[in-house]
This record gives sequence, C-alpha cells and structure tokens, in this order.
Amino acid sequence: MSPTAVALGSSQTAAVALPQLIAALGGDLLGGSDIAIARIAPLDEADEVSISFLANPRYQAQLATTRAACVIVAPALAEAAAARGAAIVTPDPYLYFARLTQWWAARTRPAAQPGVHPSAVVSAEARLGRGVEVGPLAVIEAGAVVGDGARIGAHCVVERDAVVGAGTRLAPRVVLGHGCRIGARGIVHSGVVIGADGFGFAPSRDGYVKIEQLGAVTIGDDVEIGANTCIDRGALSDTVIEDGVKLDNLIQIAHNVHIGRNTAMAGCAAVAGSTRIGANCTIGGAANIVGHLTIVDGVHLAAATTVTSSITEPGAYGGPYPFEENASWRKNAATLRQLHTLRERVRALEKK
Amino acid sequence: MSPTAVALGSSQTAAVALPQLIAALGGDLLGGSDIAIARIAPLDEADEVSISFLANPRYQAQLATTRAACVIVAPALAEAAAARGAAIVTPDPYLYFARLTQWWAARTRPAAQPGVHPSAVVSAEARLGRGVEVGPLAVIEAGAVVGDGARIGAHCVVERDAVVGAGTRLAPRVVLGHGCRIGARGIVHSGVVIGADGFGFAPSRDGYVKIEQLGAVTIGDDVEIGANTCIDRGALSDTVIEDGVKLDNLIQIAHNVHIGRNTAMAGCAAVAGSTRIGANCTIGGAANIVGHLTIVDGVHLAAATTVTSSITEPGAYGGPYPFEENASWRKNAATLRQLHTLRERVRALEKK
Amino acid sequence: MSPTAVALGSSQTAAVALPQLIAALGGDLLGGSDIAIARIAPLDEADEVSISFLANPRYQAQLATTRAACVIVAPALAEAAAARGAAIVTPDPYLYFARLTQWWAARTRPAAQPGVHPSAVVSAEARLGRGVEVGPLAVIEAGAVVGDGARIGAHCVVERDAVVGAGTRLAPRVVLGHGCRIGARGIVHSGVVIGADGFGFAPSRDGYVKIEQLGAVTIGDDVEIGANTCIDRGALSDTVIEDGVKLDNLIQIAHNVHIGRNTAMAGCAAVAGSTRIGANCTIGGAANIVGHLTIVDGVHLAAATTVTSSITEPGAYGGPYPFEENASWRKNAATLRQLHTLRERVRALEKK
Repeated sequence: MSPTAVALGSSQTAAVALPQLIAALGGDLLGGSDIAIARIAPLDEADEVSISFLANPRYQAQLATTRAACVIVAPALAEAAAARGAAIVTPDPYLYFARLTQWWAARTRPAAQPGVHPSAVVSAEARLGRGVEVGPLAVIEAGAVVGDGARIGAHCVVERDAVVGAGTRLAPRVVLGHGCRIGARGIVHSGVVIGADGFGFAPSRDGYVKIEQLGAVTIGDDVEIGANTCIDRGALSDTVIEDGVKLDNLIQIAHNVHIGRNTAMAGCAAVAGSTRIGANCTIGGAANIVGHLTIVDGVHLAAATTVTSSITEPGAYGGPYPFEENASWRKNAATLRQLHTLRERVRALEKK
Repeated sequence: MSPTAVALGSSQTAAVALPQLIAALGGDLLGGSDIAIARIAPLDEADEVSISFLANPRYQAQLATTRAACVIVAPALAEAAAARGAAIVTPDPYLYFARLTQWWAARTRPAAQPGVHPSAVVSAEARLGRGVEVGPLAVIEAGAVVGDGARIGAHCVVERDAVVGAGTRLAPRVVLGHGCRIGARGIVHSGVVIGADGFGFAPSRDGYVKIEQLGAVTIGDDVEIGANTCIDRGALSDTVIEDGVKLDNLIQIAHNVHIGRNTAMAGCAAVAGSTRIGANCTIGGAANIVGHLTIVDGVHLAAATTVTSSITEPGAYGGPYPFEENASWRKNAATLRQLHTLRERVRALEKK
Repeated sequence: MSPTAVALGSSQTAAVALPQLIAALGGDLLGGSDIAIARIAPLDEADEVSISFLANPRYQAQLATTRAACVIVAPALAEAAAARGAAIVTPDPYLYFARLTQWWAARTRPAAQPGVHPSAVVSAEARLGRGVEVGPLAVIEAGAVVGDGARIGAHCVVERDAVVGAGTRLAPRVVLGHGCRIGARGIVHSGVVIGADGFGFAPSRDGYVKIEQLGAVTIGDDVEIGANTCIDRGALSDTVIEDGVKLDNLIQIAHNVHIGRNTAMAGCAAVAGSTRIGANCTIGGAANIVGHLTIVDGVHLAAATTVTSSITEPGAYGGPYPFEENASWRKNAATLRQLHTLRERVRALEKK
C-alpha cells in the first residue's frame, strides 16, 4: 500500500494512500483503503482526489453533494459520511484537519537547509545552534543567540544580544531588535518589526524630548506573528507576549503592553501603551484598546471595537458603528449628535 | 519647434514645447504654439512655465487667477480658457492629465537598467525574461519566473515558484511568497508582503494548532499595491485579486478573499477571511469588512465604515461615528448606551 | 566619588554615582551622595539600585512604598521625598526623566561606528558627510546626500537624489524614496516607507489610469517616525512634515498631506490626501482624517475618531463608538439605525 505518484501540474506533489495518512495522524478509516489523496479541499471544491472535512454541522448538507474521495467527520456523522464514500472518523474533525495540513506541508515543502548562506553577514560574536538555517543577505549581530534548528529568512536583521528560540522560523525580512527575545517554535512573518522604540516623549518649551526606550521585548514559546506587525520595546521594563499568543498582520503592540497566554488577535488590531490583556482572549480585527487598561482573561472583542476602559468580567464585548445605506446613515448620524438632547426631551415628555 | 532646455535647479528637466506635448497625447491646442512647459501644477500653484488642468467645474473661478501658461479644459470651457492664455481642449481633462503625468515621468525619470545587479542572489533555477532588471541585493529563488521587462527592486525576495508578469515593477523591498503570482504591468510598492500565511488555527486543549496555509495568492494584470500592504495566502485554495484592482497602503487582505476587477481600496482598509468583494467597488480608507461576506459589484463604502453583513445591492454605504467636540461626544456616547431603553420609553409614551 | 562597577547579568552596565548624574543633568540632590544607581525604574518596580521619578501627583502615595534609592520630584514634594531617601529636585520631573533616559542610553549603548560596511552598495555618485555610518547591505543610490554623523541602518535603501540630514538615524530596513528629504536629528524606525506613490488614478472606460506622482516628501528636523509607517510622495508638489513632528507606528500619511510643527500622532492613525493638520496637535491612535480637510493648530483628537469635516477651532474632539457588553451593543446598534425615526416620534409626541 505505497502512495501512488501523481503528476499535479507543476507542483509535483506525490499523492498519498489513506492508510498511510491514518498511520501518521490516527482516526478510524471507514472504507477507502485503496484511495490515494492528492489534495485537501473544502467540501464544495473537492474533487475525486481530494480529502475534505466537516467540522460545522451547518454544512452537513454538503455531504450529499461533495465529490471528495474522503471526508473527515465526527462520530455522529460517521454513518452518513460512509454511506457516500470513504470517511475518517475522529472526535474533533477541525483539529484533525489542522494536523493534516501540517503533515501535508511537511511532505510537500522543501526541507530546511541548515547552514549559513554565503551572502549573510553574521558576526563572529553571534552564537548559532545546531542545524540553524540563515538565508541570503540576513544580518546577525554580535551577542545574538539563535537556537537549534531555527530558520532565519533572507534579509532578516537579528540585532545585538537578541535571542531566537529553538525551532523558531523568521520569514524573510524580519527585524528583531537589540536585546529582544522570542522563544521556541515561533513563526514570525515578513515585515515584522520587534523592538522599535516605544512612543514616549516629554513635552518641553522646545518641543518634545525623547524618552529613550530602555526596555526590550520578551516573547514566549509557540507564538506566531503576522506580516508587518509591530511590537515596540518597553520604556523601562519589557513588553511581554506570553506563550501561545497568535497575532495576525499589521497589528500594533505599543510599549509595555502585556498579552496573556493563548490570546489571539486579528489583523489591524492596536493596543496602546502599558495595557494588560489577559489569557485566552480573542481580539477582533481592527479593534483598538487604549492605553493603561486591564482586560481580564477570557474576553472576546468584536471587530472594530474601541475599548476605552478596563474590562473586569470575561465575556463578549462589541462596539462597531452599525453601517447602513448612506442616506440613512447621514440622517441617523446627524441625529446622534443630538442624542443627549433627545433624551432630555423624552424626560420632559415623561414628566408631563 | 524643438523643446527648449531649461535648468530647473537640480532636477535637470528639459522643458517641452506645447506642440510636442500635443503630438504625444492628442487634444486641440488653442494658442501657445511657442510656449515651453517646465512643470505640471494645480491651478493655484501654477506659474508661467506650468501646465495645469480644470477637471472639476467648482474650480472654474481659478481660471481667472491662475498664472498657468496652459490649461487643459473640457470643450465647454474652451472659450473661457483661451481668453486668458493657451489651452488644450479634450473631452476628459482629468484623464488627459493622468496621461500627461505618465508621459512626463517617462521623460524625466531614469530608464530601466536591464540586467542583474552583481550583489543580487538569483537562483540558477529561476527564469528571467528579456530586459528584466534585478536590483541590488534582491533574492530570486529556484523555480521563480520573471516576465519580460519586469523590474525587481533592491532587497526584494521572490520566493520559489513565484511568478512576476511582464512589465511588472516591484519597488525595493517587496516579498512575493512561494508559488504566488502577479500578472502583467503591475506596480507593487515597498514593504508589501504577498503570501504570508493566512491566520488559521484550530483550538485544542493545548492551545491553538496551526492550520498550514496551502494555497497561494493569484493577482491579475494592471494591479497596483501600496506600501506595506499585506495579502495573505489562502488556506487551501488561493486568495484572488482580479485585473485592474488598486490597493493603497497598509491594507490587510486576509486569506481566501476575492476582490473583483477594477475595485479600488484606500489606505488602512482591512478585509477578513473568505470575504468576496465585487467589481468596480470603492472602499474608503480604514474601512473594515468582516469575514465570510459577499459584497456585490458597484458598492461604494465610506471611510472608516465597518461592514458586518453582506451587501446585496449596489450603492453607497457608510458608518463612521460622527465626531464632535469632546464634551458633547461624551454625553451623546453615554446616552447611546441607553438608546434601546430610550426607544422603549418613547414607545411607552406613545401608548399613553 | 567614582561610579561603582556593578555586574548586571549580561548587560555589563556600569552603575553611576548620583553626583555624577547631577553633574551631567543638573537638579538639586538631597542626600544620596554615596549612592550608585544601576537602573531606572517606575516607582512600583524600583529596587535599591534604582532611580525613579514622580511626575504625576496621583502617584504620590507610591513615595511611601517604593524601594527606589533615589526619586526625582518637583519642589513641592522635595520634603516628602527626602524623608524616605535620596531625592533629585527639579521643576519638571518628567522632562528630567526624559533627559536621564537619553544620558543613560548614551552611556550604555554601543557608539556609532563611522564607515561604510563592505557589504553595502553605495553609488560613487552619492555624497556621504563626515562620520557617517552605513550598515550592512544598505543601498545608497546616485545623487543621494547623507549629512554628517547620520547613521544608515542595515538593509536601508536611500534612493537617487534623496537627502538625509546631519545626525539623522535610519534604523534597519527603511526606504527613503527618490528625491525625498529628511532634516537633521531625525529618527526613522524599521520598515518605514517614505516616498511610495500617492494613490491617484483617473477613471476611464478601460479601468483606472495611473496618475504618476511627480512630487516628493519633505520632512523637517527633529522628526521621529515609527515602524512600518508610510508617507507617500505628493502628486505634483510635496507631502510635508514640519519640524518636531512625532509619528508612531503603522501610520498612513497620504499624498500632499501637510503636518504642522510639533504635532504628535499615535499608532495606526491615517490621514487621507491633501489634508492639512496644524501645529501642536495630538492625534489619537487609529484616528482617521479624510482627505482635503484643514485641522487648525492645537486640536486634540481622541483615539479611533474619524474626522469627516474640517476643524476650525482648537480643542478636544472625539468620536469612538462606546463599546459595551455584546448583547447590549446589539440592541443599541439596531436602535441606532432607527434613530432619526425615533426623533420624529418624539417630535410627534411633543406636538400633542
């Protein structure tokens, strides 16, 4: 039962037999022991060489129409899935799917190429662990430490005394500022800037006087940071990102912010200085949190919400302005500017 | 009637005679056959060596006061313009102006310098078309294809199997991720990241488990992408940007978004995962569109609007909160938190 | 009274005696002439080798509990501070603190290393002043001018005819576009893009036609620009940032914007094209200002405010939507869409 090689246009991905997939990832296979899978696809885009998954019961109707060769399902749907073709039964199909994508990527992507590209500029006073890969034109300064198996992409700059944990991957063009640290198994996408100066000035008669930012950034293990996101260094102590935090693209984390374990933040969110966000929060895209607040664990913030005071109870919070057709929005927005007056008028009517 | 050379400080731009300009761009010249133009300027900043344009009738009064040597106008204003000096008459003065800037830039900017800079790191397994320019310290990986006449700026990274269309220009420091494609005649500004991982995780008892993003990004022809904008790769299939789309700076396009032909999006807009935006839309600056929505063709969204549900009819939509003087804003915002109650109170009054 | 050397882990920072600090920065020292300071810390994090400061009277209670060896205070608190340990008395403790951080950074950070790194690509037609430092893999094109003592970080691109003022520091990976200028003593953080094209197109039957951006960017002295911020070049004339302006991270400044002296703008703010902002304004994080407006001097804008019309009076303005618990937000937001109608109903009631 070895996998069948299948030409997939230019991608050259070898197909894989379902039993081989089960051997790697577990789950119960119903039927399909002779089926080779060449790609992973959503139910409605799957073809006869695809594996798909059904995680949300809302999409159950698609089971009847999908062309997928095999569908990953929860036990409750095993029968329905097996009635139409091969199925993998597992308690959490979405989690299984996530692990499948990892296994798939490991199979199909080029392996790391340990070694330092000759065009990289690596200080003799930097320390590189075993199996480190340093890409073309990367810069690693004196005192920097790169853990075993870490990958430093093309054009990265790892400044003096910065630390990259074991197995962490910096995509091309990441800046890790002097003295900043990221733990193990992290992923940092292109354009990220860790450790630029926090935004601090004292006003004076001659204009603003810069407060040099003497802290750094400390990032835990298993953290992922999206493209062009910025995490500023602390003013005196460090900005802190705890283990398991996931940050999307174009996020702004100001100086001395603290983000708790396993909190996830969607694109374009912004957190102002010294705010502390708890663990296991989800922060919607383009949400803004002003400075010097505390958000407790387990807070879920809707997209485009602006938080202007601390949140002391877990739960879901929101605050985007309700969009509508332009003419209507104009009328309502104009009235909104008189809302307090309107309340007074209602009060007056009630008194009569 | 050759153009007169005029020294313009350090810019060394040669002035150009109006008939030469007409020969290149068309239009009817009224008077001014002996005038040389040394710069393009708005009506209110123009001097006696400037050409200007009048596209918006609101500015017609400026015709009387501008010092411009020549003004580009629509036929309805030909007489008024000619009464005060040279004029070029054309049905769409703004479009003429756009073409004039292109012709001007081509005259005054350094020509492309085909060839690969010796400091660039180009894989022997990359394919470069004819007349390609590769700037200093750029990286082009194996399997990448760069079309005829394309320009790859300094410090760009074109990853394995990525494709750059003919005549497309990457400004310095662009990342085009592995397997991502951009069509012909595109312009990509500095700091753009195309093909970072989409933001996808499955929750588990041990924290988030990464969903490897196995898709890529497909971008059509004639697309322009502004500085530091991010377009993530799709989870399973591709993120798609159709022909003629124009994206401004610092925009976030999440995984599996689809943007239709000739849609333009202003700076700091953000589109969450799997949302589909139609053709010929205009999206205002800092507008946010949440995930898994459909926006039909011909939708025009005001700046700073948050879209939380699909838009099924073309038209103009808005939703920024109406700003006002702080004290007043505080009162109205506080009342807004009791708005639903206020409506109940009005209802109660009505029942009496 | 020479400073005592103290080992501080890997940082190798020498402690400094208080009288030496006073000699450099002024202020009146009460007690503590034998104390050596090894770090600067907030009152509540200070230890017995820390110097701290009390700028905000709200924190006066911390004077009683802080372990700081020395506290910087205003004259009114001199007695209270001296009662508990050493104190430095100065009219503006926060400003003193700012200057202390600068002095501290100068003591503890590596000195500039004048010279051009051998891996940098510097045109023979660029002009570098005395004492300029050019980092690894930086690119400086023909016609560029770099002033005395300026520092060009690793991977920066200074395009043709761009100008960097004396003493200005570009962090790693900054793009300064062709013909753009920044004055003296500036700081530009990583990922900044100065001089990408402004977003300008003329619509046509065949889609958008690009308006080439023929202006540049002119930036004054003493300007700081945060990570990944973008400042676009003007369409015909220049985008202008005046002396002393401070921009945080991920800010978008569109073409032909003009920002007045000593205005400060927090992270993720965005200013659309041709808008003019006065001097001494403060713009909150994620605030948006639409195009073609005028904001006078001395305007203070709350975070996440969208400005849709000119502001003609100095003062404080706001406009973020008031966030709240999700269920309540939903009700209020739904009612908001009927606000104009609600006002009509109140009017009807009043008429009765």
